[in-house]
Amino acid sequence: MTTESLPLALTMGDPAGIGPELALMAWRRRSQEAAPFFLVAAPAHLAKVAKKIGFDAPIIETPPEQAASVIAEGLPVVPLENAVDADFGRPDPRNAAATIESIARAVEAVRLGKALAVVTNPIAKSVLYEAGFRFPGHTEYLGELAKAWGEPGFPVMMIWSETLAVVPITIHLALADAIRALDADLIKRTARIVDRALRARFGVARPRLAFAGLNPHAGEEGTMGREEISIITPAIEALRREGIDAVGPLPADTMFHARARAAYDVALTMYHDQGLIPAKTLAFDEAVNVTLGLPFVRASPDHGTAFDIAGKGVANPSSLIAALRLADRIAR
Amino acid sequence: MTTESLPLALTMGDPAGIGPELALMAWRRRSQEAAPFFLVAAPAHLAKVAKKIGFDAPIIETPPEQAASVIAEGLPVVPLENAVDADFGRPDPRNAAATIESIARAVEAVRLGKALAVVTNPIAKSVLYEAGFRFPGHTEYLGELAKAWGEPGFPVMMIWSETLAVVPITIHLALADAIRALDADLIKRTARIVDRALRARFGVARPRLAFAGLNPHAGEEGTMGREEISIITPAIEALRREGIDAVGPLPADTMFHARARAAYDVALTMYHDQGLIPAKTLAFDEAVNVTLGLPFVRASPDHGTAFDIAGKGVANPSSLIAALRLADRIAR
Repeated sequence: MTTESLPLALTMGDPAGIGPELALMAWRRRSQEAAPFFLVAAPAHLAKVAKKIGFDAPIIETPPEQAASVIAEGLPVVPLENAVDADFGRPDPRNAAATIESIARAVEAVRLGKALAVVTNPIAKSVLYEAGFRFPGHTEYLGELAKAWGEPGFPVMMIWSETLAVVPITIHLALADAIRALDADLIKRTARIVDRALRARFGVARPRLAFAGLNPHAGEEGTMGREEISIITPAIEALRREGIDAVGPLPADTMFHARARAAYDVALTMYHDQGLIPAKTLAFDEAVNVTLGLPFVRASPDHGTAFDIAGKGVANPSSLIAALRLADRIAR
Repeated sequence: MTTESLPLALTMGDPAGIGPELALMAWRRRSQEAAPFFLVAAPAHLAKVAKKIGFDAPIIETPPEQAASVIAEGLPVVPLENAVDADFGRPDPRNAAATIESIARAVEAVRLGKALAVVTNPIAKSVLYEAGFRFPGHTEYLGELAKAWGEPGFPVMMIWSETLAVVPITIHLALADAIRALDADLIKRTARIVDRALRARFGVARPRLAFAGLNPHAGEEGTMGREEISIITPAIEALRREGIDAVGPLPADTMFHARARAAYDVALTMYHDQGLIPAKTLAFDEAVNVTLGLPFVRASPDHGTAFDIAGKGVANPSSLIAALRLADRIAR
């Protein structure tokens, strides 16, 4: 099988959330030119979702190898070994094994050359924790699975849309802890992965990285915080000496309007909301979560399980469709 | 003089910055229906600015009382007592007295019933400090001037545009200090002023206030920070008991896209960048800085002195024009 026809491996996500119905909708809205994909899920549960939302095309059980050739006829599903018994909007630790298996099988398909990249549907961490899952989140579990490649990996989250790409250097930490976690090594390590990924995956010959300051007005020369002087500027200067096109630290409030965005390819922010506020304000339905720094490509819609609307057929598949499109583009 | 014809009092700002030329441009672009205004400045310096940028309409020295009747003929200027000797782009402590006098005289004109509201051009704090100015910023100095009304005032900064209004609850503090400064009393006191101002000044019968959380995902039930539980939620609940329509704490990254914004009139954020990132990303050229909680209305363009482009005639007067328009609307 050539790379040309390799399908994307899409995970089920939490079966009580909107992941399964988004997969059905993404298949329905699929254009002829779109990359083929298969869903790693429980066919019986998927049939239940299809019935609930009035999806009447075939659900085709298939090994990864056949997905590309059957996708025109119906949604290709690689069946899970673990059973799923889920009510819409009611997450249940009994389904944790299946949710985790779906992720592991999708990654395995890429490792075995049967899939091009992984696209993940949203999971509910608290349910997985109850079932004994020991990773802080999706991304960290993918980092663990990456060990099968013989590389440890250093997962870096990028929120990408045609409008804006951002990489928060600290992510899921309380804001006070994020400030404490910030150091020059973390900034440099993250930036190098971003620089390399933009060159290798996104076709940017010389990526322009713009760094936000931590404090208001980027600290205004040390009068409102000193992290710019003690941590961020030295990191940027070191990156420049390595040949990376790095500018900053910039005042975060004036770096995301249209004219400012034209000056860089990716914004690196010091904490979660500093990057995710502009990313989701500008491109709420189209933003894709891409994990860089892994030996495989992983993209994901940039929203959660949305248990409150699961099974109603009203979820918006735009972000999942954007994730499938981006995964295909950067993995091919 | 009736409120109908009362002019707005516009300050000069730093004379080496773009304030004076923005005033000339705002006069040039003024429509017949716009509120009259006068600039409190040094006529000779203004003539120099006019010559530099090719502005050839008359500059008319006038007391505040005559501004409305002469503005059709030229820019009304209330002359300063202090001299100004400024080179473009070169801030100089020798001009600090004039810069400060311009602010004080504009506020005084409002207090004496000769002007409707104050609109301020940008100042450079460091230059004023060198000359002995002892206030942390513009807003705090206005709070001091408000004492002439016999009220101490509690200045609250709102960044307003037709697209989004935000009030950061902590402002010009290092981010780590902003986290420490956050308490329920500060949140409540700020929110009450915002609620009252939206009713009294903005004609919103029942203002809807949306509060951001401090931490990513608004703390995700205490797993990423506890300020939402210990500080923000109790403050919001207390405000609700007072009859204020307060919702939150909301995850900051998903509260600023178009659908989310439709659910509130103003967003109260826990720190500077959390509010100013979306405000300036969405409305960079139109955002106005409005000070609430003072006995008079004050609005200001939401940008700085821009010394690098002063005297070149390329500065964009959109934000100043929006500030003049908003000051007139909310003061009348």
